[in-house]
Amino acid sequence: MTKWVYTFGAGKADGSATMKELLGGKGANLAEMSSLGLPVPPGFTITTEVCTAYYDNDRQYPDDLKSQVETAISAVEAEVGAKFGDAANPLLVSVRSGARASMPGMMDTVLNLGLNDETAQGLVAKSGDERFVYDSYRRFIQMYSDVVLGVDHHHFEELLELHKEDKDFELDTDLGADDWKTLVEQYKAKVNEQLGRPFPLDPQEQLWGAIGAVFGSWMNQRAITYRRLHDIPADWGTAVNVQAMVFGNMGDDCATGVAFTRNPSTGDNHFYGEYLVNAQGEDVVAGIRTPQPLTIYERELGGSDLPSMEEVMPSLYKELAVVRDRLEAHYTDMQDMEFTIQGGKLWMLQTRSGKRTAKAALKMAVDMCEEGLIDRNEAVRRIDPAHLDQLLHPMIDPNADKTVLGRGLPASPGAACGKVVFNAEDAEEWSKRGEKVILVRIETSPEDIGGMHVAQGILTTRGGMTSHAAVVARGMGTPCVSGAGTISVDYKTKTMKALGKVIAEGDVISVDGTSGEILLGEVPMIQPELTGEFGKLMVWVDEIRTMKVRANAETPTDAQTARDFGAEGIGLCRTEHMFFDPARIIHIREMIVATEEAGRRAALEKLLPYQREDFISLFRIMEGLPVTIRLLDPPLHEFLPHTEADMVEVAKAAGTDVETIRRHAEELHEFNPMLGHRGCRLGVTYPEIYEMQARAIFEAAAEVGGVTPEVMIPLVAVKEEFERLKAMIDRVADEVKKDKRAAFDYLVGTMIELPRAALRAGEIAEGAEFFSFGTNDLTQTTYGLSRDDAGRFLQIYQEMGVIERDPFVSLDQDGVGELVKIAVERGRATRPDIKLGICGEHGGDPASVHFFNRAGLDYVSCSPFRVPIARLAAAQAALGVEGESNA
Amino acid sequence: MTKWVYTFGAGKADGSATMKELLGGKGANLAEMSSLGLPVPPGFTITTEVCTAYYDNDRQYPDDLKSQVETAISAVEAEVGAKFGDAANPLLVSVRSGARASMPGMMDTVLNLGLNDETAQGLVAKSGDERFVYDSYRRFIQMYSDVVLGVDHHHFEELLELHKEDKDFELDTDLGADDWKTLVEQYKAKVNEQLGRPFPLDPQEQLWGAIGAVFGSWMNQRAITYRRLHDIPADWGTAVNVQAMVFGNMGDDCATGVAFTRNPSTGDNHFYGEYLVNAQGEDVVAGIRTPQPLTIYERELGGSDLPSMEEVMPSLYKELAVVRDRLEAHYTDMQDMEFTIQGGKLWMLQTRSGKRTAKAALKMAVDMCEEGLIDRNEAVRRIDPAHLDQLLHPMIDPNADKTVLGRGLPASPGAACGKVVFNAEDAEEWSKRGEKVILVRIETSPEDIGGMHVAQGILTTRGGMTSHAAVVARGMGTPCVSGAGTISVDYKTKTMKALGKVIAEGDVISVDGTSGEILLGEVPMIQPELTGEFGKLMVWVDEIRTMKVRANAETPTDAQTARDFGAEGIGLCRTEHMFFDPARIIHIREMIVATEEAGRRAALEKLLPYQREDFISLFRIMEGLPVTIRLLDPPLHEFLPHTEADMVEVAKAAGTDVETIRRHAEELHEFNPMLGHRGCRLGVTYPEIYEMQARAIFEAAAEVGGVTPEVMIPLVAVKEEFERLKAMIDRVADEVKKDKRAAFDYLVGTMIELPRAALRAGEIAEGAEFFSFGTNDLTQTTYGLSRDDAGRFLQIYQEMGVIERDPFVSLDQDGVGELVKIAVERGRATRPDIKLGICGEHGGDPASVHFFNRAGLDYVSCSPFRVPIARLAAAQAALGVEGESNA
Repeated sequence: MTKWVYTFGAGKADGSATMKELLGGKGANLAEMSSLGLPVPPGFTITTEVCTAYYDNDRQYPDDLKSQVETAISAVEAEVGAKFGDAANPLLVSVRSGARASMPGMMDTVLNLGLNDETAQGLVAKSGDERFVYDSYRRFIQMYSDVVLGVDHHHFEELLELHKEDKDFELDTDLGADDWKTLVEQYKAKVNEQLGRPFPLDPQEQLWGAIGAVFGSWMNQRAITYRRLHDIPADWGTAVNVQAMVFGNMGDDCATGVAFTRNPSTGDNHFYGEYLVNAQGEDVVAGIRTPQPLTIYERELGGSDLPSMEEVMPSLYKELAVVRDRLEAHYTDMQDMEFTIQGGKLWMLQTRSGKRTAKAALKMAVDMCEEGLIDRNEAVRRIDPAHLDQLLHPMIDPNADKTVLGRGLPASPGAACGKVVFNAEDAEEWSKRGEKVILVRIETSPEDIGGMHVAQGILTTRGGMTSHAAVVARGMGTPCVSGAGTISVDYKTKTMKALGKVIAEGDVISVDGTSGEILLGEVPMIQPELTGEFGKLMVWVDEIRTMKVRANAETPTDAQTARDFGAEGIGLCRTEHMFFDPARIIHIREMIVATEEAGRRAALEKLLPYQREDFISLFRIMEGLPVTIRLLDPPLHEFLPHTEADMVEVAKAAGTDVETIRRHAEELHEFNPMLGHRGCRLGVTYPEIYEMQARAIFEAAAEVGGVTPEVMIPLVAVKEEFERLKAMIDRVADEVKKDKRAAFDYLVGTMIELPRAALRAGEIAEGAEFFSFGTNDLTQTTYGLSRDDAGRFLQIYQEMGVIERDPFVSLDQDGVGELVKIAVERGRATRPDIKLGICGEHGGDPASVHFFNRAGLDYVSCSPFRVPIARLAAAQAALGVEGESNA
Repeated sequence: MTKWVYTFGAGKADGSATMKELLGGKGANLAEMSSLGLPVPPGFTITTEVCTAYYDNDRQYPDDLKSQVETAISAVEAEVGAKFGDAANPLLVSVRSGARASMPGMMDTVLNLGLNDETAQGLVAKSGDERFVYDSYRRFIQMYSDVVLGVDHHHFEELLELHKEDKDFELDTDLGADDWKTLVEQYKAKVNEQLGRPFPLDPQEQLWGAIGAVFGSWMNQRAITYRRLHDIPADWGTAVNVQAMVFGNMGDDCATGVAFTRNPSTGDNHFYGEYLVNAQGEDVVAGIRTPQPLTIYERELGGSDLPSMEEVMPSLYKELAVVRDRLEAHYTDMQDMEFTIQGGKLWMLQTRSGKRTAKAALKMAVDMCEEGLIDRNEAVRRIDPAHLDQLLHPMIDPNADKTVLGRGLPASPGAACGKVVFNAEDAEEWSKRGEKVILVRIETSPEDIGGMHVAQGILTTRGGMTSHAAVVARGMGTPCVSGAGTISVDYKTKTMKALGKVIAEGDVISVDGTSGEILLGEVPMIQPELTGEFGKLMVWVDEIRTMKVRANAETPTDAQTARDFGAEGIGLCRTEHMFFDPARIIHIREMIVATEEAGRRAALEKLLPYQREDFISLFRIMEGLPVTIRLLDPPLHEFLPHTEADMVEVAKAAGTDVETIRRHAEELHEFNPMLGHRGCRLGVTYPEIYEMQARAIFEAAAEVGGVTPEVMIPLVAVKEEFERLKAMIDRVADEVKKDKRAAFDYLVGTMIELPRAALRAGEIAEGAEFFSFGTNDLTQTTYGLSRDDAGRFLQIYQEMGVIERDPFVSLDQDGVGELVKIAVERGRATRPDIKLGICGEHGGDPASVHFFNRAGLDYVSCSPFRVPIARLAAAQAALGVEGESNA
């Protein structure tokens, strides 16, 4: 027989804190506290397995659940000395959901369950407090009707207001027992009116109704959305906790409160919390009465004139402080506790590891380690990499008022505000005259790089998490919201429309690249503050991790940022990004429109010095570290002019007419540029391009000295492509060595970014000295999914649960991951010392970093601003922590 | 020590006919004939391994080659009784290339090698025929200079002409010994003048020069191109045959000729050939003298007035006829033989399996089987599937005069001629008034379907072998040349420019989709003629093969053609092709521009009857056979209007304005539609579309009865996509069964056309009852290669040898093939009885069919016109014949 129900209370429990999967977080911790001998009102937990069975079995409970619940209720009755549903001596219970992870959107709590007209009478007799009983009764009806029966609470609030008007009352406390009695009757009538059936008075029916509501809420839309956003599988299920009621609202020797073993905002090691005398838990939350500080320290710090619990109930405070020490030492983590005092007795209702701000998380982990509570590994384990991300970027002040204009994808974290401009040229011009701008585009293209560089933030109305805008913005550390589909942009009139408002050029907006929100006007922000704890933690992180972390960077600024953030080299220098500078693009365009090799070579000759200088400065910044340079990758049409003026200029430079240029552009047009004439296909068909790039790299290496460039050939599908180009690169290296009388080492390797390359990795490794997995393109091809176009349906897919994560954000380990593993295995079989890395966007995603660590890669490479996150994730991976995804 | 040299002659040989890989075809057969005791002039073969070693080793010969050649020469000298280079009694030799497969473009032959001023004198003394000797000498100098030294033959022809003018000679036969002597001196002087060094007179130098020229020619451009076109790997290498000269030009008891054991044009079982008295082999070929028929039968048949060999040299003819019988019985195949008669003695210089026309190949195979020479399996093995293809389509008459305007890819076989039109509407209009048209487009799109249907032939200037035009044309059996890059089309003026000529609308051209040629005017054609042999062979084919062959078809015409060609069902019915009819496209456009599901459903409701009728007629034609129907696959923007008039119509039908339609089109625009919102992604996000299609399929099944539709979901990447859609399809099937009170069976399966689907085939097979490999898209994604864009560099890749075959024509077995194998294995592991097929273009490519047979697929599906080819290839695969590719 499966055990579906676990009891706790009175110094013992069936379960323990280790059984979160079965009992949920709340249930497991109630069991743990009971076993620790802490005062916990007795109760029981219906396991998450019941939830799973319920959904697997067409919403039917397991057969023997009923009898197990009855047995558990009897045990609680025995402990409390009262009987559930007994008219004379009734037991009241709370029913709460409790999933493995805390989950807003679930049915939360029903209190005072078991009350009806008869048990209320019994409770009056027992407690001698009629007002308290009928106040509790009406609260129960409202809560139960709202969360279980679906009768909105405003119906009840309306009746209460009417009654107060009638009686000329101002506060709820003005109402007496009879008022509440009247309202209880009105409430019941309202339920009947709304549902066409009476409010359930049978305590058993109430209990099973509440249990059913908890399980039912597991599949409501909010819960589903939350799970999707937080990557919680639906089959985890929720548990249900049924627990004897204790009352903090039976008089002035009663109280209720929440407490944190340390300050959850700052991380300071001080007992922290709030409480209210003569109140139920909901009163603390509801904000009708101002909660009082827990400690004198806190009162003084906050300048509160309300007395602290430490002063009002000193012995109970001391008892609570002992519980604090006990629990933090036991759990070795900051605890978030709920307590109730009933008639001078302290009851613990919940403990759990408390939520904390990014800053607090970092401080607590470092402090606890230095206090000896946890070791360094544990301190490193404690930090959520997403938290670290927050610490590195400006944030919208969570307390600020804001008008949300729309939402897009959180494409590059951080917040920014500025004046709206609608094209890159304007961005550059406005920025030159000192304006802060937000660049708003339907989508961006490589031509916009200049404007993107100077913008405070970027907003696009199309494109996904790995669209051009998103990738480039992350690389620059510029906040970006992409694919904000509800916003429409009109380039002609230089306006955007959002939420019925028209925003014109020059109007101020804010973008929050962490949440994806677009906000009207300037919104207050919190600037990042890297404390001493950050430095300490990163030292520990680096001691623990085994996988190296490099950065994707091509500009000196990015390279310097990367190095400052601890990058151990450049894993991807995209040489094409260097071509968009106006001084250079004219030459690359000349090259493209040349019909003969000689013309191309002449144009490339002019580009050579620029490229060489690029590499010289990169090599200097990255001194002593490896630099991987990817040869030209995008299709040539990306460089061609779109405007008439640009075409005229190119025509002039190339000694031809505009019509020819236009025809060139037309001829180069591709239906699917992602799968077109790009990458090494350019290198094979126009070897002079790669030859120039190889020459620039080697001449720079010769000049700087002491650097080992890693020359990377993109988009290899066939061994022969690699072999030909490697032979050419080796030849150029020899020529440069001879010409410059210089010696330098270098490696030649390839991207593995096509399924075929992964499958044929064994033979490609015969020549390739390193592989770098281009997981962006590998995802596009393995999935048959264009990252620029997928925005349209990927989000729907996630909402529907067709896919759990955006595969462009967090690696699709089952599909793309298998190809990575195949390539690692086959590559190493051919060349055991082959260097293996990854330079796709996934290099900055913790879950993906964990996968790459397991797959045995030597390094990951990510945008400069994600380097600390990748370092942390790599350390956690080395510790065997399960990785969470950004997706 | 490696044996580099194999001798033959005098009734024995080191090699045999089975050693073609090592000795080349010519060498192996010379050895075989020697062993059979046939009269073969003695000689030796330098193996293909020398060629490979030569290129692997920077064009150096193996060390011990020289000594082995010397030994072999000595053996020949002993046999002939003459010495190579000996002034008194010189041995002359021929040097010929001989690869495994016959290969035009290679250096062919040098005759009379060993002649110089001294040996010529010796030969005069020996033969007593000075004229013959100096005639041979001048021929040698010209031939050797041309093919070994690179001095063009026109230099020598010019000198000969001048001499003839000088002497007032008309014919070569007018020249005497002194004339040739004079010319020999002039020839030598000319060589010296051209090269700045004298003609090599040392026989050893001559020999090694000729050997080097053979090996060198293996890598000349023509040979490389030929290998690419015929799919011959470069590492096969060529052999070199050195053989004692015999002379057919030493008098009237001498002759030379070629003979076929059967008629190579018709396949008739009659001895066939040509000969010339007192001539060298080149005279037969050169066409200066008219060759004479071999037999009386032939002379009478051809109405020739020249006497046959059977009449002129009856005993030698009989001897040759015995050789004919001997060789055909020995090789059990039609032989193409070369012979020379010197002084009344017959010498066999070569035998090989003779080239034959498609018609002859078929007749010979069937005849030989019925004669008992070969069995049915062998008869089936004999037919090159490409030959079958010829028999099914009209061909350009090979003897016709033609003006080639340009060349493109041979995209859909067969030839056609008609008046040029430049758009689909014109094609339909002209065709309605009875004109035959060739539709010329830069590229075609699904909108052009109507015009493509009525055109005799299709010509595009862009796109590869699997571009839209190519795929659709092959499906229709319409001749098509695609990607003819040298032709430029101007839609505005309705003209095309080719070879400097302007072709206007209405001008007549011919297209040859078998060769890729575009020809001016109307060119005579040969109509296909399916003889009784075809039927016989196909019966044998069907007995042998184990893999089924289906067709890709959606129109009743195509389905009927397919069935007539022996298709065993439809493997791919592309439902979207049914939407382009003007009566329907308006509804699909209405559906697309509807913003709400209700609007989409209303539009789909109008499409339902059309689709149902489509399926009813398909099911009727395919009665008793399976029909696989793929649900909507292409992105919706493919259906949107491009012209203003169409937009207005759609706007009207959808009750909106043109601007909205235009915005819709813009919003649906995709950067990489191949990787975009298409296939089951449409089905998941707009389930009502697939629901309508499923309903149409099942209502048709209910109406026709006795049919088992196979509903196919395209572009599945993730199991959940399939599961959701299958659940919906099952629901619709249940509804239709209930509504129509009908019973029918059906299967639900998926395309495997993404690498991820292949990798996850195990879990997809949990729900999928069949897999059909969409190898077109699987190739695009595995290779990262757009078939519409790849034309630009794939051909260059093939010319360069980067890839051997176009992966869209012949399956990339190493890459894409591995994914197919993985999916087969994993799919069968989950569901052992899963039905496995392939419906990509590769279904009609013999080499690919062989692969699919090995991979264990149940069927291949190809265009209707390729069904017989696929049947034959499947039979050959079952016989273990190595498959040749179309690529």
